[in-house]
Amino acid sequence: MLYLYAQQDAEQLAPLLRQALPDIDLAVWPQEVDGAAVRYTVVWNPPEGFFARFPRLEAVFALGAGVDRLLARADLPPTLPVIRLTDAGMAQQMAEYALYGVLRYQRQFDVYQRQQAERRWQPQRPRLAHEVRVGVLGLGAIGAVVATTLAGRGYAVSGWSRSPRQLPGVDCRHGSAALDTLLAETDVLVSLLPSTPETRGLLDRERLARLPRGAAVINAGRGEQLDQEALLELLDAGQLRFAQLDVFAREPLAVEHPLWTHPSVTVTPHIAAITLPGPAVEQIAASLRALQGGARPEGWVDRQRAY
Amino acid sequence: MLYLYAQQDAEQLAPLLRQALPDIDLAVWPQEVDGAAVRYTVVWNPPEGFFARFPRLEAVFALGAGVDRLLARADLPPTLPVIRLTDAGMAQQMAEYALYGVLRYQRQFDVYQRQQAERRWQPQRPRLAHEVRVGVLGLGAIGAVVATTLAGRGYAVSGWSRSPRQLPGVDCRHGSAALDTLLAETDVLVSLLPSTPETRGLLDRERLARLPRGAAVINAGRGEQLDQEALLELLDAGQLRFAQLDVFAREPLAVEHPLWTHPSVTVTPHIAAITLPGPAVEQIAASLRALQGGARPEGWVDRQRAY
Ligand SMILES: NC(=O)c1ccc[n+]([C@@H]2O[C@H](COP(=O)([O-])OP(=O)(O)OC[C@H]3O[C@@H](n4cnc5c(N)ncnc54)[C@H](OP(=O)(O)O)[C@@H]3O)[C@@H](O)[C@H]2O)c1
Ligand SMILES: NC(=O)c1ccc[n+]([C@@H]2O[C@H](COP(=O)([O-])OP(=O)(O)OC[C@H]3O[C@@H](n4cnc5c(N)ncnc54)[C@H](OP(=O)(O)O)[C@@H]3O)[C@@H](O)[C@H]2O)c1
Repeated sequence: MLYLYAQQDAEQLAPLLRQALPDIDLAVWPQEVDGAAVRYTVVWNPPEGFFARFPRLEAVFALGAGVDRLLARADLPPTLPVIRLTDAGMAQQMAEYALYGVLRYQRQFDVYQRQQAERRWQPQRPRLAHEVRVGVLGLGAIGAVVATTLAGRGYAVSGWSRSPRQLPGVDCRHGSAALDTLLAETDVLVSLLPSTPETRGLLDRERLARLPRGAAVINAGRGEQLDQEALLELLDAGQLRFAQLDVFAREPLAVEHPLWTHPSVTVTPHIAAITLPGPAVEQIAASLRALQGGARPEGWVDRQRAY
Repeated sequence: MLYLYAQQDAEQLAPLLRQALPDIDLAVWPQEVDGAAVRYTVVWNPPEGFFARFPRLEAVFALGAGVDRLLARADLPPTLPVIRLTDAGMAQQMAEYALYGVLRYQRQFDVYQRQQAERRWQPQRPRLAHEVRVGVLGLGAIGAVVATTLAGRGYAVSGWSRSPRQLPGVDCRHGSAALDTLLAETDVLVSLLPSTPETRGLLDRERLARLPRGAAVINAGRGEQLDQEALLELLDAGQLRFAQLDVFAREPLAVEHPLWTHPSVTVTPHIAAITLPGPAVEQIAASLRALQGGARPEGWVDRQRAY
């Protein structure tokens, strides 16, 4: 049996799962079932104690790309296989989200917005795409597509990952030692890193200050990576030009948080790349079949490295 | 002799022209020359009476794609060949300008901006690229690149021109009868038409009202095409969602004009696609060589149709 917990999305997901896995019984929260009969769960932010109800679970499928909250749970058995979504339609959305911020920087829509408020008609010295250096942190299923999309639009793109990667048109670097140089050479920083013990707090005051004066920061990875206070100070000091943030240390962003009202900050409510029911179910079904066949599916999460 | 009039850009253009056309004498405004020795001029908005000084001109090269102001001049001999720039690096810039507005519409950055002002964390029902219908008016050197770029990013793109065109991935239509249907099926209208007797006033109240409720308008063609009063009324009525305008009936936009302060209008000061000295000179030199060889260069302006 497969047990689905997906709040309001369950209505759309359940029929798709039934169709994709006709031979597997599907139960949907809050349905009462014999917990020992459940082999698989498909979840997004299930309630406390959820996993304890299913003592014979063989795998958990996450309805997203990031599994930080799932892995942080006390009730998740430490050796239980966790499978996440890889791309599943999210990479294109993320490329759009990043491209918007990069265009805003390159074509100076933020500057023209301020001028408009002053009714000032003042063409700015323009900047061509190849003159804008974009640094993409995280070259996984999502980051790789974002980096190559931006390179395809003519930007000078560098990328950063843990292990070596090769991407057409992207200057790929890896390992912690390479980060400082990359930051110093980046006009627009796009962070698409997962939240892990290694990445939490990574973009601290010191590292953010390495960005050249007037750089912009786009964060759509996870909020814990970025020191929000340091970011605000660097924006106030004019060291950074603007920030476009989709993820925050605490979500939803608290009503009194100064990020909401800062003139150089764009806040979006964690919508950069949402899970699409169709591609998600297709991928989960394929992964489940792989597991049944004894293979390791694509989105297999390495519990050691935590992504 | 070639005479250059390009205000502050002359400094950058003159050495490039000398390099590209070493066998041709170059004079730069306000240099005094024997007017009868001048065969060619390279110009952008030259002063009144400029052309009368050169009785033996063989061709005028415009330092831009739009020649409406040039053709409207009383001192321009009616049969003098006029050669404009075709693309010359402007198409990519225009694609960026349009893409920014289309992304703003699709990814609802305008909605999130309003929500941010209210400190409201509220994810919106997302829209995928293929669910957004973009209508591109004008499929010339610039419009064709904009249309195919947007189609390449996954948008459902229709295009409109005077004569039939074929572009990969773009639903091409032509002729005045086809416009009303196209408008009714367009979520984001991108106008890249030249200003001619036929296009002036084209996007009047009636035509703008054909756009579906909640549509957006991007105009980077010429301001005279669009009824600015009607646009403001349709924005106020909530019939249109936003406008991104780079060109205006009068430029610079007057300080007291309501477009400056309308919350749903983005004003940019005619910067969507600027002339790049390198590619411009390269193209002018090639066109001049073509003329010398008795051929008709690419940017040859049809004085009858006025573009
Ligand atoms: N805002 C949103 O709407 C949204 C939507 C979807 C996803 N996300 C976020 O985006 C993240 C990335 O998704 P994905 O599917 O691309 O993940 P992924 O395929 O696991 O890729 C993660 C990338 O980050 C790199 N990385 C991890 N730890 C690192 C470290 N310590 N130093 C340097 N590089 C490191 C990895 O390096 P290797 O290549 O060497 O493994 C890999 O390139 C998710 O974890 C999630 O947090 C956000
Ligand atoms: N805002 C800026 O920074 C900026 C920069 C550069 C250019 N522009 C504007 O962009 C315009 C277009 O540039 P371009 O180089 O692409 O021009 P182009 O190559 O001459 O193309 C003009 C296009 O408009 C179409 N067209 C003209 N009159 C029409 C009519 N009455 N009905 C339907 N379609 C009509 C033409 O149709 P056919 O294909 O049938 O000929 C052609 O597809 C310029 O004229 C200029 O006004 C603005």
